Amino acid sequence: MHYRGSLDRIFEIREECGVFGVYGHPEAANLTYLGLYALQHRGQEGAGICSSNGHTMCIEKAMGLVSDVFNEERLKRLPGNAAIGHNRYSTAGGSMLKNVQPIMANCLLGSLSLAHNGNLTNAISLRKQLQQDGAIFQSNSDSEVILHLIAHAKGSSAQEKFIEVVQEIEGAYSLLILLEDQLVAIRDPFGVRPLCLGQFDGAYVVASETCAFDLIGATYIRDVEPGEMLVINDNGLHSVKAIDSYKRAHCVFEFIYFARPDSRIFGGLNVHRIRKELGKRLAINSHVDADVVIPVPDSGVPSTIGYAEQSGVPFDFGLVRNHYVGRTFIEPKSSIRHFGVKIKLNAIQNVTRGKRVVIVDDSIVRGTTSKKIVKMIRELGQAKEVHLRISSPCTIGPCFYGINTPTRSELIAATHQVEEIRKYLTADSLAYLSLEGLRSALPNPDDYCYACFNGDYPIGFPQEESPEL
Amino acid sequence: MHYRGSLDRIFEIREECGVFGVYGHPEAANLTYLGLYALQHRGQEGAGICSSNGHTMCIEKAMGLVSDVFNEERLKRLPGNAAIGHNRYSTAGGSMLKNVQPIMANCLLGSLSLAHNGNLTNAISLRKQLQQDGAIFQSNSDSEVILHLIAHAKGSSAQEKFIEVVQEIEGAYSLLILLEDQLVAIRDPFGVRPLCLGQFDGAYVVASETCAFDLIGATYIRDVEPGEMLVINDNGLHSVKAIDSYKRAHCVFEFIYFARPDSRIFGGLNVHRIRKELGKRLAINSHVDADVVIPVPDSGVPSTIGYAEQSGVPFDFGLVRNHYVGRTFIEPKSSIRHFGVKIKLNAIQNVTRGKRVVIVDDSIVRGTTSKKIVKMIRELGQAKEVHLRISSPCTIGPCFYGINTPTRSELIAATHQVEEIRKYLTADSLAYLSLEGLRSALPNPDDYCYACFNGDYPIGFPQEESPEL
Amino acid sequence: MHYRGSLDRIFEIREECGVFGVYGHPEAANLTYLGLYALQHRGQEGAGICSSNGHTMCIEKAMGLVSDVFNEERLKRLPGNAAIGHNRYSTAGGSMLKNVQPIMANCLLGSLSLAHNGNLTNAISLRKQLQQDGAIFQSNSDSEVILHLIAHAKGSSAQEKFIEVVQEIEGAYSLLILLEDQLVAIRDPFGVRPLCLGQFDGAYVVASETCAFDLIGATYIRDVEPGEMLVINDNGLHSVKAIDSYKRAHCVFEFIYFARPDSRIFGGLNVHRIRKELGKRLAINSHVDADVVIPVPDSGVPSTIGYAEQSGVPFDFGLVRNHYVGRTFIEPKSSIRHFGVKIKLNAIQNVTRGKRVVIVDDSIVRGTTSKKIVKMIRELGQAKEVHLRISSPCTIGPCFYGINTPTRSELIAATHQVEEIRKYLTADSLAYLSLEGLRSALPNPDDYCYACFNGDYPIGFPQEESPEL
Amino acid sequence: MHYRGSLDRIFEIREECGVFGVYGHPEAANLTYLGLYALQHRGQEGAGICSSNGHTMCIEKAMGLVSDVFNEERLKRLPGNAAIGHNRYSTAGGSMLKNVQPIMANCLLGSLSLAHNGNLTNAISLRKQLQQDGAIFQSNSDSEVILHLIAHAKGSSAQEKFIEVVQEIEGAYSLLILLEDQLVAIRDPFGVRPLCLGQFDGAYVVASETCAFDLIGATYIRDVEPGEMLVINDNGLHSVKAIDSYKRAHCVFEFIYFARPDSRIFGGLNVHRIRKELGKRLAINSHVDADVVIPVPDSGVPSTIGYAEQSGVPFDFGLVRNHYVGRTFIEPKSSIRHFGVKIKLNAIQNVTRGKRVVIVDDSIVRGTTSKKIVKMIRELGQAKEVHLRISSPCTIGPCFYGINTPTRSELIAATHQVEEIRKYLTADSLAYLSLEGLRSALPNPDDYCYACFNGDYPIGFPQEESPEL
Repeated sequence: MHYRGSLDRIFEIREECGVFGVYGHPEAANLTYLGLYALQHRGQEGAGICSSNGHTMCIEKAMGLVSDVFNEERLKRLPGNAAIGHNRYSTAGGSMLKNVQPIMANCLLGSLSLAHNGNLTNAISLRKQLQQDGAIFQSNSDSEVILHLIAHAKGSSAQEKFIEVVQEIEGAYSLLILLEDQLVAIRDPFGVRPLCLGQFDGAYVVASETCAFDLIGATYIRDVEPGEMLVINDNGLHSVKAIDSYKRAHCVFEFIYFARPDSRIFGGLNVHRIRKELGKRLAINSHVDADVVIPVPDSGVPSTIGYAEQSGVPFDFGLVRNHYVGRTFIEPKSSIRHFGVKIKLNAIQNVTRGKRVVIVDDSIVRGTTSKKIVKMIRELGQAKEVHLRISSPCTIGPCFYGINTPTRSELIAATHQVEEIRKYLTADSLAYLSLEGLRSALPNPDDYCYACFNGDYPIGFPQEESPEL
Repeated sequence: MHYRGSLDRIFEIREECGVFGVYGHPEAANLTYLGLYALQHRGQEGAGICSSNGHTMCIEKAMGLVSDVFNEERLKRLPGNAAIGHNRYSTAGGSMLKNVQPIMANCLLGSLSLAHNGNLTNAISLRKQLQQDGAIFQSNSDSEVILHLIAHAKGSSAQEKFIEVVQEIEGAYSLLILLEDQLVAIRDPFGVRPLCLGQFDGAYVVASETCAFDLIGATYIRDVEPGEMLVINDNGLHSVKAIDSYKRAHCVFEFIYFARPDSRIFGGLNVHRIRKELGKRLAINSHVDADVVIPVPDSGVPSTIGYAEQSGVPFDFGLVRNHYVGRTFIEPKSSIRHFGVKIKLNAIQNVTRGKRVVIVDDSIVRGTTSKKIVKMIRELGQAKEVHLRISSPCTIGPCFYGINTPTRSELIAATHQVEEIRKYLTADSLAYLSLEGLRSALPNPDDYCYACFNGDYPIGFPQEESPEL
Repeated sequence: MHYRGSLDRIFEIREECGVFGVYGHPEAANLTYLGLYALQHRGQEGAGICSSNGHTMCIEKAMGLVSDVFNEERLKRLPGNAAIGHNRYSTAGGSMLKNVQPIMANCLLGSLSLAHNGNLTNAISLRKQLQQDGAIFQSNSDSEVILHLIAHAKGSSAQEKFIEVVQEIEGAYSLLILLEDQLVAIRDPFGVRPLCLGQFDGAYVVASETCAFDLIGATYIRDVEPGEMLVINDNGLHSVKAIDSYKRAHCVFEFIYFARPDSRIFGGLNVHRIRKELGKRLAINSHVDADVVIPVPDSGVPSTIGYAEQSGVPFDFGLVRNHYVGRTFIEPKSSIRHFGVKIKLNAIQNVTRGKRVVIVDDSIVRGTTSKKIVKMIRELGQAKEVHLRISSPCTIGPCFYGINTPTRSELIAATHQVEEIRKYLTADSLAYLSLEGLRSALPNPDDYCYACFNGDYPIGFPQEESPEL
Repeated sequence: MHYRGSLDRIFEIREECGVFGVYGHPEAANLTYLGLYALQHRGQEGAGICSSNGHTMCIEKAMGLVSDVFNEERLKRLPGNAAIGHNRYSTAGGSMLKNVQPIMANCLLGSLSLAHNGNLTNAISLRKQLQQDGAIFQSNSDSEVILHLIAHAKGSSAQEKFIEVVQEIEGAYSLLILLEDQLVAIRDPFGVRPLCLGQFDGAYVVASETCAFDLIGATYIRDVEPGEMLVINDNGLHSVKAIDSYKRAHCVFEFIYFARPDSRIFGGLNVHRIRKELGKRLAINSHVDADVVIPVPDSGVPSTIGYAEQSGVPFDFGLVRNHYVGRTFIEPKSSIRHFGVKIKLNAIQNVTRGKRVVIVDDSIVRGTTSKKIVKMIRELGQAKEVHLRISSPCTIGPCFYGINTPTRSELIAATHQVEEIRKYLTADSLAYLSLEGLRSALPNPDDYCYACFNGDYPIGFPQEESPEL
């Protein structure tokens, strides 16, 4: 896939992330630290916080988990009543400090920092144009393109500049911008990534998911709307329509896998409830006689509970996850190589021995992990039969809107029939949730993006950047 | 409790730990690294590995998780066919590198290192005697006492020395000793802590729990028996009776909380299965009408499944655990203080709203955490009723055999009636599993230590060290 | 001094530095490492190297000495036949990684990095203009202004762009620019800072001082001329006149203090020889009967030798310098405070006891250090008389061309007569070298900048940036 | 040399070091930090400080320079009125934290720490005996032997124990021992290494050299006498004769090279003055017609000044030392390899061009460095003639009393005649100071050890440890 190659080279930084912002609280940086803690599942590669005390901006960021990056001393270096923070997703290779957000710079508006969740689809064209105009780039991130567009915008006020920029950029963005005296939150017109508004102790808070509000004790007010720009400053909260929103395209994968089960997103829908619903639909659609149904922990748990409830097959834990798996696991050499999934998962023999077992997982990407799980349950777990059930449809296309997925050719369901996949996985049976089943679990099914399942990409690409899908 | 004070001062290091050893494999250190990885739940404060190539011994250890302590370069500095490793439990304060094991020294036997899980009960007397004889101590660890006893032993061979030492020490010990040319595993005559023997790729492996064998693909052979000394060298495996074993006293808390659910310990009993059984007995003993039963994750999950199966109350996840909570969480100051359990757990409203909820947890220590959980489910989770069920009896006494527990006065059940505790926790009802219920879930109930539940300490204390129980 | 305040705020980064570059050698980064080693005296705060292999550019930089910043592994990450490096001067406070050079960015020319010794005088105006045009700044460094000017230049080729930029910037600059396929060296039309061209093993090398050539065994060819742009690529070396040079203004302070005594600069003049000459003129101008003449080590040594030769007063070492003084000396609190110069210097009693002592130093800035030295020789050294001789004229003005000096009000000679200073220092006599004496020691005395001695600043300032001198 | 091999293996840690101690000052650790700063030249590998507040002892130590090891936070962790500190000498390889002193342990006397400068000659026998008695060793250091001897001593008081130990150990030791409530300083009966007593601000201080007193402003009282034990506690200072001292054997190499020129040692003799005297004797003994005499900086400077004064040959600096050479210089590979002395020294052409040059150095060990210096002055320095003068006699034997020297076979003068050495060095002439010349420069020449020059080792070795000299 020629295009991906070049796109990878220039904009390799296109991962899922978490953002958090607060305006009007004396402990802004501490609250942001806590918010990032709660959003850690959205990005484990690096974390950063930028704060403002009204005239000076400070930033601290580093590779690693929130709890590794920040200590008391470092938080003390972030004074002020306003702050934004960002968690970056872990990627193999190419990880560098310069890609950790927020990104900060000085321009005509003074100091300005930015935290971005999502991915622009016209970043290459914009970058080329900006370089023609004399812009110099520090990174390959599409978020830096936004920074330059702001600096080049003609508008006389910050808000005018931002609205100008929003007309130029295409793609997915849940964006927090911190100026010396205001916090601005902007969401793309499709509302691809979640972005929620809350209130805490007289201050406004903005976060990717409501679980960040629960931790600090903030109250969820509403989502930042698609196309909306929220300006928060000493005068309070102002909503501005930054760009028209004709159609919503919320990322359905947030429900399937990405968001935390205790969060409410996309209009306040509880993730755990939707996942259980997916499991129920899956049970209806793909019945098989079985003695026990077990999840692939942790993301598969809620749909497995739904499956068990619907099917009557007893729920149990047949796979244990080792949560102490750090970022730096060393694959030992030679004879004891190839640990694969074993470093993270182990079978509990007693649960599956001699039984007809249903395993529920949320998705299959390359298939290699699923194959190892099936093998582990059959061999170490001594199962009689192993049936695999997936609580989402076949993943056939990559995401260009902010989730890091393999290229199409690496997606096993893009090039193989279900029966071929079943054989490869050595499962006794395999079934996916149908697209209809998925849609039926959602209140407003037309408001979602299903591109990775059906190839129907709601946000277009400039001609020269069009990926070969 | 006066005695605890002084005991704390001198032997403050008395925590649960994990040990792993291997003899006869070219990748001994790498295997030990993996073994420690699987045993990480037994100790997160520090980790170390000591290896021997037959004539030289190398050691690497540091504070932190196994994955933080070891990298490729560090593992390369551990050559040889034999190795032992150790994970130390996390404690508040007093943590220092010098207390991380293995501990190593040179004596008449040459280089020698030692990894110890358990706690000696006569360490103070032994230490005093050793100092009289000119011994100098580097730490407050009771494990260092063992090292000195070995160095002072009169026996002409290493094995003779070890047997001498075993006659002198009292208490709980699952002990690995690495000499330049042999690995020795010794277990106290009561078999308090688990210690398992396995085989992998022509080599022998020893580990606290079988989950370490599963990860590397080793086969579980049998437990190291109470009072047994296993000597593993180039001539193979030799079993020696080191000390008579009249009565077994396996730590029942390993089943209730400490061991990993996928492990088999104390004669190959699966931990998950026993935990489910505890949940079933609990359901029988303490029925309450309810709409949903939820676990306190992660340790409460198996017993909750058992409870649900037995009671017919639907199982669900109403509490989510944030697994990214690192060791260095900073409690923010002033207004946003007192996060307590919220940094680790959050309620899923949809699961419990308007319902009669049973929460199952494995134990109550001080009661402060349980109180916050009850509150969280009632307020954030909007439950109609909150019933707490504990899958073990009331914890009324501290452990002196290797688990770090608060002093008696801090144990809520040591000084309060169940109804008083219920009121404090603000639960609608509270029930513990009875001691009989616990015993009935175990195949050979007389082989266990229940001291923390009934105050009946199976291993005595020297008169001057006798704690006021 | 109002202007300095604001100038400090915006362009606080205006220190002396060392630069080194090489093109056409397979070990370019290693050579640059060695070159920076030799130039360490020009900057101890931070060091960086940027290398290019013809298509990819890599950079490594950090706070600290060259030997702390670079290790084998880090040098390996700098492949390619071309490299530039930079040492930054140590400053109190305000030191940050983002100010360490080379600075690197992507623009229309591809990857580009820059190492700058000197200081621009119109940086504020240029920066304002660039921000109007949409430029965003990462630092307060005037060097970043140059980077933006290059990116904004209209010229079609790199060289055209550079020549454009040189027309715009004013002040002092010895500049190395690395592109993917060429190394460019530019020197301001006044030739304020030194910059030398050499040859080594078929490659061209450029360095602030020739001592860097000596270390690697390179041959000194000639200086990069004032106003000259040298372009070095696979086609060899090309000299381009970038800007007209009407008048030279070499920094005379390089001879007095800054450069290494073994270097040859400003047309191949040996620094040690000039310094000795200064000492001789000083002896002629300011005779005093004495028993011994001692230097303030290390910079005062050559002039003291000259002084002794000329005057016949015996030379000796009466002050010892502790070279192990690191960057992080902690001033202990309370009773044992105020170590001042004692941490670096100590008197050798035997040398000065009961004698009439002449101390030779290179300059007096605030006077506080000189006062402590006089006191030390008189009290600890038990000297009978203490005469201070300075091998340069009174320092009455700050440098705006690349040396970090205090503001005018902090310069003791700017506001006090020599006799007043003598009294403050408690010396028996005090004499400075006269400006005429200084000029007479130099072959072409009109080619130098003496602004810090006579207030005659050869390079002007834009009206709005004009310092109140 | 068979013996050295085995000795190296077991007691490889036998380097020159610096010690400092203070009793009775509220800023004991800070003063010790400053004292170690001044003594940094005696050891750059590692540094440590141990303090006591009367009942608790704290220790901080690490690899690196004093200024790297200690910061404000670390010094704060060392409370109390008493402290001892230690600098370790830099050695190639084999450097490990466990060898950094002070070494600390708990024994019958309570907490005890120890800092040792010197080397025991019967450490192997003592260690063997101690291991027979059950002692376990943490390191290969001979200082740990002393610790064990103290713990095994029968005496009822600390002082009685120390006196017992002093009867057992042989060799060189300037020893500081810190107990919870006292500081003890002991010097071997030969007085091999220096140890000075001073007073500061009501407290007693002990240091290897007086330069440490000068820095903090302490007054030198007298040396700790050979065989003396000083006990300093709340009752003041008590002198005890620990062992008879029949003959003194001060290390003459302290004067030649090791000590700082501003220090007074061995009865208050100024090092700089003795060195100048050595240069004068050298000039008398080995006249050569010359135009300039230059030192190998820094240690050769005082003797060169003496040489110049005596001979009338003008003194100058023809070699510059780069003081920024850190511990981790990376020798670049392949074509640009073999920097040798060039990384540290460079020639100043102007000083030596066309001249007859005398170079004065303090000693020749292997000869490789001297050869490079001669070559540098002849080639880069363009000297007409190069004459090398050494301000000490031929070094023919290793030191076994605390200075790390190569084995005999590596000492060029042990196996070659002066004329052979001259040819190897390519010098026009070469002369050493005669042993008589050296003795004549010292007030009490019989009180010194000249073993490295004449093979006459004043302290014997046990039969089984006797080195083949």
